[in-house]
Amino acid sequence: MSDRLVVQYDCRATGAPAADVARAVAVEQTIEFPAELAPQWIQDEVVGRIESVDDGSFTLSFDPRLFDASIVQLVNVLWGNVSLIPGVRATSIEVPESFRAAVAGPRFGIAGLRERFQAPRRPLLSTALKPIGLSSEEFARTAGELATAGIDLIKDDHSLADQRWSTWEDRVARCSDAVNAADTGAVYVPSLNLPADRLLDAAVRARELGAGAVMVLPGIAGFDMIRAVAEATGLPVMAHPSMVGSHVVGADHGLPVGFVLGMLPRLAGADLSVFPNSGGRFSFSVDQCREIADNCRVSDVPTACWPTPGGGMTLEKVDTIVAQYGHDVCLLIGGDLHRGDLRERATAFRAAVDDLDC
Amino acid sequence: MSDRLVVQYDCRATGAPAADVARAVAVEQTIEFPAELAPQWIQDEVVGRIESVDDGSFTLSFDPRLFDASIVQLVNVLWGNVSLIPGVRATSIEVPESFRAAVAGPRFGIAGLRERFQAPRRPLLSTALKPIGLSSEEFARTAGELATAGIDLIKDDHSLADQRWSTWEDRVARCSDAVNAADTGAVYVPSLNLPADRLLDAAVRARELGAGAVMVLPGIAGFDMIRAVAEATGLPVMAHPSMVGSHVVGADHGLPVGFVLGMLPRLAGADLSVFPNSGGRFSFSVDQCREIADNCRVSDVPTACWPTPGGGMTLEKVDTIVAQYGHDVCLLIGGDLHRGDLRERATAFRAAVDDLDC
Repeated sequence: MSDRLVVQYDCRATGAPAADVARAVAVEQTIEFPAELAPQWIQDEVVGRIESVDDGSFTLSFDPRLFDASIVQLVNVLWGNVSLIPGVRATSIEVPESFRAAVAGPRFGIAGLRERFQAPRRPLLSTALKPIGLSSEEFARTAGELATAGIDLIKDDHSLADQRWSTWEDRVARCSDAVNAADTGAVYVPSLNLPADRLLDAAVRARELGAGAVMVLPGIAGFDMIRAVAEATGLPVMAHPSMVGSHVVGADHGLPVGFVLGMLPRLAGADLSVFPNSGGRFSFSVDQCREIADNCRVSDVPTACWPTPGGGMTLEKVDTIVAQYGHDVCLLIGGDLHRGDLRERATAFRAAVDDLDC
Repeated sequence: MSDRLVVQYDCRATGAPAADVARAVAVEQTIEFPAELAPQWIQDEVVGRIESVDDGSFTLSFDPRLFDASIVQLVNVLWGNVSLIPGVRATSIEVPESFRAAVAGPRFGIAGLRERFQAPRRPLLSTALKPIGLSSEEFARTAGELATAGIDLIKDDHSLADQRWSTWEDRVARCSDAVNAADTGAVYVPSLNLPADRLLDAAVRARELGAGAVMVLPGIAGFDMIRAVAEATGLPVMAHPSMVGSHVVGADHGLPVGFVLGMLPRLAGADLSVFPNSGGRFSFSVDQCREIADNCRVSDVPTACWPTPGGGMTLEKVDTIVAQYGHDVCLLIGGDLHRGDLRERATAFRAAVDDLDC
């Protein structure tokens, strides 16, 4: 079974017998066809295999020939049409070793970005350019200050796209220049929430303009766009969870949070995966966040990626976050740096990390 | 308010006062920044405006400059980070007239495909090539029979991608040839569940190979990929709901089903939107399906698109489906055509539609 995709589903909320739901999902996710009418070998090899059925749950496994090394086909097999059935929740997903070995995964990951930022042991630091409505000149000035203060990754707020207040190319050019001029090793990370047919070209253009990393929104552009951007640019890629919540917050519907915000972006090649930390503006629990971080870092195939907890984090919480995740974490603090003098607070953010016993 | 994006949210399941959630969402979806620290004009113009607060619900409106005519930014503003908050459900979404007028929308839509298929009044007929595991030769033979029998749109099962049993280019070439050879006006509709960086080129290649339409999976590739494929190919585009369920089936979380399966694909340019009909393998209600169809067809800006109810439909249900939707519907019957002689049952499918009092 080790080379098959293994998915556990909970179906108590459907009110139907688990054996019936198991048979329905095994067919729905593969041949979508009256099973008894399919050739025998297809019934035996292509239809999902029912590994076990318990009270209110069941486990299926899927032949890797259904998806080979394709991210889009992997998610289609494990959640495509089942997503339309209320009351079914995937509770555990084991991706075959062969798949994990076949994908490129993060180009940099934990080791690569430690080298990139000359940070052999400390957590990385990131922040976001806010608020939307400011001009590119204003963002660039702020970006330069943040780089000078010692922040490693200065990203666009995910809502910054190509609005008239700050158009995409103008912002990327100015912010890249400002961050690179600080000469601290910091990188500017533009958001790629752009039209589907412009996104890859824009990613390459961002590199030409001097951006040192890029941010993809897989809930909007698709998870495989992370891979495509990583391949096209060779830059570190940060994944942002906008729109992804639909797949994970349902009590009795959806996918495991650790898979969607940890393993899946990592398989697709994200070097950093942003998620809402416990104790912030969102209601993710400590256990959910641990599950995400575990999925970012467990084993080394593919390369581990940086859990990047954000969503309302503050300077005062740096020690708590590091205690929660250890040193292999990218700290993301946005608005809180603006509660006072920005340069001063950003410098304090870096100092708090440098003071850690690494 | 008519030129703003207006969204009603239900937040009873959060357990928090609606006024508090309203303020949080208005900020989260725009500046994601301590509102009081933003310049006054940004607080006034860029932050979401609270239009009303009731017991357990609230209505926000958003400045169209946040998204202009961008599909990716529209969905980001109305559901991006809110998606990560359990217990918040968008119950109504009004897209500004200016947005509806600015997008290209369906190139063909209801009127265009009536002309394309010389079907001035009748419903359209579609089916899917199944089951995965067959060879391209087998699919092509079946596709030719279905075209000869009078089916208009012969699509790939959405799980057909680029698997070794039937590789993408080989299948598209053979099935296009077989359908075109029938010379009945039918079109073959290949699935574009392909890697993000191959998808647009493949869409153009499908046209070169003779495919008469293409199918996009926006839940996997992103909704804006519908628009990009329509622009790149000029072909009719069918949207398939794989993975989209996460956004719509939650009782107290998610987006309106009519928006996600009707208006949004239509705004992006889908000429046909597939969804699971009531009474089939899925549990969508008659009311939900009416909401989807209404969103496909209400008003004519942009061009109306074809509601395409499927998911376990049978020949015996043709009259019921037409009674449910009227004649502006694309009937999708898959596996049921194989319960007996395929050619005979496909011919009966067409005859059932020709017999309608149109």
